[in-house]
Amino acid sequence: MEIIRAVDWNPDGDAVRIIDQRRLPATLVERDLRTLDDVCDAIRTLAVRGAPAIGVAGAMGLVVAMQEFAREPRDLFDARLRETAATIRSTRPTAVNLPWAVDRMLVCASAVRGSATEALDALRAEATIIRDEDRAMCERIGANGLELIPSGARVLTHCNAGALATAGIGTALAPIYLAAAAGRNVEVFVDETRPLLQGSRLTSWELTRSGITATVIADNMAASLMRAGRIDLCIVGADRIARNGDVANKVGTYGVAVAARHHGIPMYVAAPTSTFDPATPNGDAIEIEQRSPDEVRRGFGTLTASEDARVHNPAFDVTPAHLITAIISDRAIHYPPYDFALATAPAAALA
Amino acid sequence: MEIIRAVDWNPDGDAVRIIDQRRLPATLVERDLRTLDDVCDAIRTLAVRGAPAIGVAGAMGLVVAMQEFAREPRDLFDARLRETAATIRSTRPTAVNLPWAVDRMLVCASAVRGSATEALDALRAEATIIRDEDRAMCERIGANGLELIPSGARVLTHCNAGALATAGIGTALAPIYLAAAAGRNVEVFVDETRPLLQGSRLTSWELTRSGITATVIADNMAASLMRAGRIDLCIVGADRIARNGDVANKVGTYGVAVAARHHGIPMYVAAPTSTFDPATPNGDAIEIEQRSPDEVRRGFGTLTASEDARVHNPAFDVTPAHLITAIISDRAIHYPPYDFALATAPAAALA
Repeated sequence: MEIIRAVDWNPDGDAVRIIDQRRLPATLVERDLRTLDDVCDAIRTLAVRGAPAIGVAGAMGLVVAMQEFAREPRDLFDARLRETAATIRSTRPTAVNLPWAVDRMLVCASAVRGSATEALDALRAEATIIRDEDRAMCERIGANGLELIPSGARVLTHCNAGALATAGIGTALAPIYLAAAAGRNVEVFVDETRPLLQGSRLTSWELTRSGITATVIADNMAASLMRAGRIDLCIVGADRIARNGDVANKVGTYGVAVAARHHGIPMYVAAPTSTFDPATPNGDAIEIEQRSPDEVRRGFGTLTASEDARVHNPAFDVTPAHLITAIISDRAIHYPPYDFALATAPAAALA
Repeated sequence: MEIIRAVDWNPDGDAVRIIDQRRLPATLVERDLRTLDDVCDAIRTLAVRGAPAIGVAGAMGLVVAMQEFAREPRDLFDARLRETAATIRSTRPTAVNLPWAVDRMLVCASAVRGSATEALDALRAEATIIRDEDRAMCERIGANGLELIPSGARVLTHCNAGALATAGIGTALAPIYLAAAAGRNVEVFVDETRPLLQGSRLTSWELTRSGITATVIADNMAASLMRAGRIDLCIVGADRIARNGDVANKVGTYGVAVAARHHGIPMYVAAPTSTFDPATPNGDAIEIEQRSPDEVRRGFGTLTASEDARVHNPAFDVTPAHLITAIISDRAIHYPPYDFALATAPAAALA
């Protein structure tokens, strides 16, 4: 099974190779980011997206952008490093993974003595570690969740919490990839996920490319599939998980959870422990970003509501813990009652 | 309050004036259908749509198409009438309202003696009666449902069962129009209704035009609005209602009903008694039309899933009677347990 790599070094190791997600699903275009402008442009325009993938791309992109200063005096190199890091950090202000990764790179550089070349080598190694940690996180989520995906399982997922959102095999899709790799015949129904259609554009594409049977549905078809007995379990990602287990995720997740409960179908959330936010007591404390009405009014260029139509367009919704059968993290499968007070990793912001 | 007229005579009475729904919501274009080709083209291309509206347009269109034969000998007129009726009937094979209305016109003509001109006059009168009956049906549904729409009500609807689907003020929207006309401050949340977006394109447009506050949401946002306490009741149309009260309607209706039940919100269905189908014992007996995958894959011209992505695209779903609080018809408000064995009007097909 071919697993795609949303973010990686290019073969020569001197550029960040990404899949340009703006071109999906029509065309698979890999782009090598070689300059600071390349890196910032790719993050800003969502050529690379998904909070974990952005963090990795930011760290690796910092290395690429600093290569031209490798022969400079160290103090000049360090000054340029701080400027470059600030520029990359500012490309998407809401994702915590990006400043987290960039700051970790600065800490790394400050701990290294010696020449600019030596500092650059250390930064390259650190970025590779960040990439590998992300991959390992995905693999552990997959391994932990594997027992929940029986052979022949028909799985519903929403949005994209897959390989395209990480440096590895994704979060929600990780157990599905490992189940397929283990020879279990898995079929996935993919909510298209209005308004931005990450399900039909990205999730369907990456699953199909990996040889997994994936069927796109409009979001409003999930409940009737459940009623027809054609869904065995649901698995989605998370943008933030409150201390009590309430989950903020892409809007529409809550409706899936309600329908799953009505039909007695398990509802699983898969996310790294970095998504757990002990400082947020419950879902009511999570602010929900409202996005542009035009995402709903003119989907992909065509006007499908009046120019002045009122639109309600929240990016996320909150699914209360009592509707979540289990949360699959890189540490374990967590069952209710949830209490994530002890999670210490930095919380990922809504992104 | 201005109520739009989706189908009517033009002021001179020699053409069928329709709102060209292909041009909505961008532009309000009224078109006068003056020939058989005009009529068939308008029905076939969904310039006029909605089962009741199509029936009225077919009957009135038959009159318009026959005008050129008003001075022919009667036997020639009758032969042309049969040919023309058959042509109009065949434009959309699945809607029962269309052949029902056309056949009623043929029965009318066969009961009239005298010249072609006299037959044409009788046909014109019969088409006007069909239009007026449809308007009256809408008014009665509205009047019957009015008690269910309190002042300040925040209503969720799905798809378009409004004025644009009938010759009158619609079915599901009829109680809303009458509540607004009675000075009750009503706010409507409109599911955009993927894949064809009848909610954002049509329902939002016609409500807003009538001065009713309407807010478009993606279908997957309805459940979280309910959880936030922002929906007081749901009201939708129906394409067919089985003897036991199971309702076939636009896909997504079932998910709305499940979410409404979860939150203790009333779920109303509004439909003419012609939609009741005593011959269908329950929803399991209703065949659900599967439509083209491209409706999901390339919404409004843009490719949003792979060309070869698998797609499940049913046009309708079935909501079981136990999730329906009440059914509002032109006769009464019907409460469970439902038994529509006595309904005698012709059943409308899924359309």
